[in-house]
Amino acid sequence: MRPYTEWSREELAQEKENLKALYKNYQMRDLHLNLTRGKPCAEQLDLSMDMMDVLSSKADLHCEDGTDCRNYGVLGGLQETKELLGAMIEVPAENIMIYGNSSLNIMYDSISRSMTHGVMGNTPWCKLDRVKFLCPVPGYDRHFAITEYFGIDMINVPMTADGPDMDMVEGLVSSDSAIKGIWCVPKYSNPTGITYSEETVRRFAKLQPAAKDFRIYWDNAYSVHHLYDHRQGYLDEILAECRKAGNPDMVYKFTSTSKISFPGSGIAAIATSQNNLQDIRRQFSIQTIGHDKVNQLRHVRFFRNLDGIRAHMRKHADILRPKFELVERIFEEDLNGLGAGEWTKPLGGYFISFDSYPGCAAAIISRCKKAGVELTPAGSTYPYHQDPHDSNIRIAPTFPSLADLETAARIFTLSTRIETIEKLLEEKTA
Amino acid sequence: MRPYTEWSREELAQEKENLKALYKNYQMRDLHLNLTRGKPCAEQLDLSMDMMDVLSSKADLHCEDGTDCRNYGVLGGLQETKELLGAMIEVPAENIMIYGNSSLNIMYDSISRSMTHGVMGNTPWCKLDRVKFLCPVPGYDRHFAITEYFGIDMINVPMTADGPDMDMVEGLVSSDSAIKGIWCVPKYSNPTGITYSEETVRRFAKLQPAAKDFRIYWDNAYSVHHLYDHRQGYLDEILAECRKAGNPDMVYKFTSTSKISFPGSGIAAIATSQNNLQDIRRQFSIQTIGHDKVNQLRHVRFFRNLDGIRAHMRKHADILRPKFELVERIFEEDLNGLGAGEWTKPLGGYFISFDSYPGCAAAIISRCKKAGVELTPAGSTYPYHQDPHDSNIRIAPTFPSLADLETAARIFTLSTRIETIEKLLEEKTA
Repeated sequence: MRPYTEWSREELAQEKENLKALYKNYQMRDLHLNLTRGKPCAEQLDLSMDMMDVLSSKADLHCEDGTDCRNYGVLGGLQETKELLGAMIEVPAENIMIYGNSSLNIMYDSISRSMTHGVMGNTPWCKLDRVKFLCPVPGYDRHFAITEYFGIDMINVPMTADGPDMDMVEGLVSSDSAIKGIWCVPKYSNPTGITYSEETVRRFAKLQPAAKDFRIYWDNAYSVHHLYDHRQGYLDEILAECRKAGNPDMVYKFTSTSKISFPGSGIAAIATSQNNLQDIRRQFSIQTIGHDKVNQLRHVRFFRNLDGIRAHMRKHADILRPKFELVERIFEEDLNGLGAGEWTKPLGGYFISFDSYPGCAAAIISRCKKAGVELTPAGSTYPYHQDPHDSNIRIAPTFPSLADLETAARIFTLSTRIETIEKLLEEKTA
Repeated sequence: MRPYTEWSREELAQEKENLKALYKNYQMRDLHLNLTRGKPCAEQLDLSMDMMDVLSSKADLHCEDGTDCRNYGVLGGLQETKELLGAMIEVPAENIMIYGNSSLNIMYDSISRSMTHGVMGNTPWCKLDRVKFLCPVPGYDRHFAITEYFGIDMINVPMTADGPDMDMVEGLVSSDSAIKGIWCVPKYSNPTGITYSEETVRRFAKLQPAAKDFRIYWDNAYSVHHLYDHRQGYLDEILAECRKAGNPDMVYKFTSTSKISFPGSGIAAIATSQNNLQDIRRQFSIQTIGHDKVNQLRHVRFFRNLDGIRAHMRKHADILRPKFELVERIFEEDLNGLGAGEWTKPLGGYFISFDSYPGCAAAIISRCKKAGVELTPAGSTYPYHQDPHDSNIRIAPTFPSLADLETAARIFTLSTRIETIEKLLEEKTA
């Protein structure tokens, strides 16, 4: 099809009328569809149900070193759990600490600790006039919510197909000692789905920050969440790269099993240098009596090793791949060539990122909602919920059934076309 | 027996020689006994093993309102879990938020949040020159560790048989706006085992703090941990009392199932006013994706209701009562009348508190250690690990077998007698 920008006013008006008639039909169906959050669907959760049986009342709940996992003790996690998650994110077990069920909570704790106690002996951030974080955009709303909650200034850095704009990152980090961190989702990024290139990772590792307490917040949320072959989406291991580059302490790496076993009932971990671990342990030993070892043991007994995790994730992929491909097909069918937006075709992760014609995102989301399709609110992928181009929309295709997803995607493309035409007509008038 | 203070130098010297011979015998046995922490023993943990079967792979993991507990969602806990823990600590479900596995972690989070964000709109504590906490002594070492970690000044308040010295608490709290909190273990207190009297609770509820953001940290760790009849150890409900007294927002109440189901794999909660909950939820929604709902459901399906918890705790009591009584009997047999120390005879909880002849506690603990009996380090029950009288020793009789406990208790009384004599001889010389 020809791009809408080349259509005449009359053609656009006619098209709008036709599309609105279709839209009305959907509206009359009283739909309640939800594409807001990266939630696994029930079929994915069913894959882990056997986990409920691996630790029965007859099971021996001692771990390999003889510890009774039912009792107090063992801060930082069972050795075999560290090994399992270490294998998953390519880090030695000795660099890992196991936390509770939420990697977001570890990130929160890391920033909270930096505020009150500083990083490795540096001034606590709450004693500084200004603290800033770099935020690759579009990015993950819950990252930005943490930094906003702590009053940390957020600076947008554009994402490219290779990761954040590294010229900008290097320039800012080396010149401004108030910049204490950067949020990264390096693999199957939230929401763009891209994986940082080797060059990007190496440039990260070689950063020369003005602040000694600058840390890369490397949220490796989708390390094994491939939609296709796991050898695609290759990502350099950042801890090793930082060590090689002489910056061993510059990165906190986070992971969890939230989208592997059960969200909310999985296990989460941080991986970092021994110096950072020592710093973190001081807090950890005061903060808690330790995390849920029975659940750690349950995960180890169920998955056993990296091969077990990979086999499990292939089953997830078999459920998710058709959903991603369905959305991509419908977008292709309904939007191709119209200039009404661009979208990513990720090889893994949980999201499709859609960039509308500038100035249309909020209107598209609002129009979808009026037809019963809930999307992540406009601006969510930007700090302070402010998308400067009002363009980015995060689409989460994992939770609905294929049938619901098809309907939702059709409503989305319809709303997109209508709002793009509205905008173009407005622009022609202006 | 006559008090050692009335013995002659010669009598004491002879006694010491006799006791040291007995002590040597124990030393030769290469023992490794541990009375340090309030840990349940394996038989207690076995009581909860059926919990591992209530959620099998065939179970329906939806809670009563239809939520799939395996997925994301539901901040603050399942309704039925709030009801269960609410019944346990005599608070309506609507006043409860469920957290992860550790009530200590909730207390840490509460103080950390107060440092960075303040309490209900008041100045964040990190912006103040000085923050102080009242610490009833002897008390719980891990409480004091949190306040010390955050640089909060700790002020000792002596414990009486009815709770903290309320004249002192009232005087300090009403006159010093830097005092922002007080640590309390109101029932079967750690370590003294006493339960706050009705008058104490009411005086707490009627406090007139100089600081608007003063909060009582009410650690209800042993709410159902009776050794005898559950109607003993009656404790007034502090939230209701505070409401009645016109101080509805003055208290945070904490609880967990750590010593009911599995320590480290239980569930923890905070109970407080709606105003405080609103304040806390602001943090909570940023901090985490929510806590482990599958484990919450597991607890509800296993215990069902307060009667279920009570029946379960009677089984715990049947295991623990003989241990407490054994220690009390040995102390009675070996120390009665000697003036070598006093000890508590608690009706519940996890500890016996021993007060030695002044200046002997560290030496007793060290002597026990040399015979293979590990005790909580001297001073642990005081802020900054400084017991002004070097007298208090916390004894945790729950974990060892009865046979080991008997040996450990004998070594303890022997060490106590030897060190008391040493001290008296020293004093006679001086």
